[in-house]
Amino acid sequence: MRVVGLGPGPARWLTPEAAEALDAATDLVGYGPYVDRVPARPDLIRHASDNRVEIDRARHALELAAAGRSVAVVSGGDPGVFAMAAALFEAVEAGPAVWRSLDIEVHPGISAMQAAAARLGAPLGHDFCAISLSDNLKPWDLVLRRLTAAAAGDFVIALYNPASKARPDRIFQAFDHLRTLKDPATPVAFARAVGRPDERIRIAALGSADPGLADMATLVMIGSSETRLIDRPGRDPWIYTPRQAGGAR
Amino acid sequence: MRVVGLGPGPARWLTPEAAEALDAATDLVGYGPYVDRVPARPDLIRHASDNRVEIDRARHALELAAAGRSVAVVSGGDPGVFAMAAALFEAVEAGPAVWRSLDIEVHPGISAMQAAAARLGAPLGHDFCAISLSDNLKPWDLVLRRLTAAAAGDFVIALYNPASKARPDRIFQAFDHLRTLKDPATPVAFARAVGRPDERIRIAALGSADPGLADMATLVMIGSSETRLIDRPGRDPWIYTPRQAGGAR
Repeated sequence: MRVVGLGPGPARWLTPEAAEALDAATDLVGYGPYVDRVPARPDLIRHASDNRVEIDRARHALELAAAGRSVAVVSGGDPGVFAMAAALFEAVEAGPAVWRSLDIEVHPGISAMQAAAARLGAPLGHDFCAISLSDNLKPWDLVLRRLTAAAAGDFVIALYNPASKARPDRIFQAFDHLRTLKDPATPVAFARAVGRPDERIRIAALGSADPGLADMATLVMIGSSETRLIDRPGRDPWIYTPRQAGGAR
Repeated sequence: MRVVGLGPGPARWLTPEAAEALDAATDLVGYGPYVDRVPARPDLIRHASDNRVEIDRARHALELAAAGRSVAVVSGGDPGVFAMAAALFEAVEAGPAVWRSLDIEVHPGISAMQAAAARLGAPLGHDFCAISLSDNLKPWDLVLRRLTAAAAGDFVIALYNPASKARPDRIFQAFDHLRTLKDPATPVAFARAVGRPDERIRIAALGSADPGLADMATLVMIGSSETRLIDRPGRDPWIYTPRQAGGAR
């Protein structure tokens, strides 16, 4: 079976390997909107589910694969980054021994932070970290501990899942915390749905940014102390983090 | 002009967008081995350079673009991650004002940590950071500070540029430092040249791993306290980091 990264949305970011895996599948398993991205074929069975049952979805995919089906588990972005691959291996570890003999191939994809970075300039040009603000699978204290560590290490920070309908306040709390630790002039970007028709980019400074600009389709990028803006005529500035750091110029 | 990510090597990981950008270019600029990956065309001019002159290469590319050429700056992996995009924007910021009016598109690619993660299982399934051990552009103290922060935050750690001919000892020093901060049983993987003919994967524990397994083509992955191995018959174990953390099960 294969775990396939669809990238952020547009076909121009779907790797040939992922496209080939989709073509070879007899069964697609995934969150409905991702399954819907794959064109229909008469011989392709679609198993779409909502986004709250990842582990059930993983088990279902493994059962199908163990029964001899050619299963593609589809995921937005990179399935290895805050996505289905981890859920799948959780299911394998807890499941019947025979699942450990399955061939499981993970096909990487362009993740949201990469699409956002490409659109913004080069904010991930130096050391960075990626943190999911979703707290239904980890305590909020651990998120705060990681934000503290990210500031202590002066990493560029890519925030995934910054807000949800159930927890719209998490991104506000994260900004409140980071404002106690980082320079208010630090560049921040809200990169929403990059590459899709509803793309929207907003650039601000940490001290005055409105965290309400982030929704579940937004990747929030927060600079290091070295991250810089380059003004340009009539357009948003570029944001980049130099390869040099710590005075080694 | 376009800054194009070639991915880790094989064509199956080159996005259609990147392939199209290569087809449309009149001039290729980049480090020799990356330029060599692009098939020759009679009308394609190749400007290959060695790997120590990124900023000169960036300036040369900008001069060509300002003169009206269709330039593709090529980079392995993702140009936004420890690669050419940051060098290019450094050159723009320091260069003539007219360079700020150029259209510069960055085309993301699969980065080494993603290829490594896909091959290993799902080690990047939860919060992680990426650190380059190259110290010709930053003081070693900053690397140690970031390793300390990464351990304090219990991030999975992806180490880029773990060793060079000039500085083969840096990865040994990094492991010595991490061994004072993290459990010796922490899973570690040395993922060399993933997807290329000379691919080699080695899995170990932090306390007993041989850092000498890392060379410049190696991505070193170091687990968080939650990262787990799944044994399987006759093959390397899978490595994954569960979506849950901090006891939120």
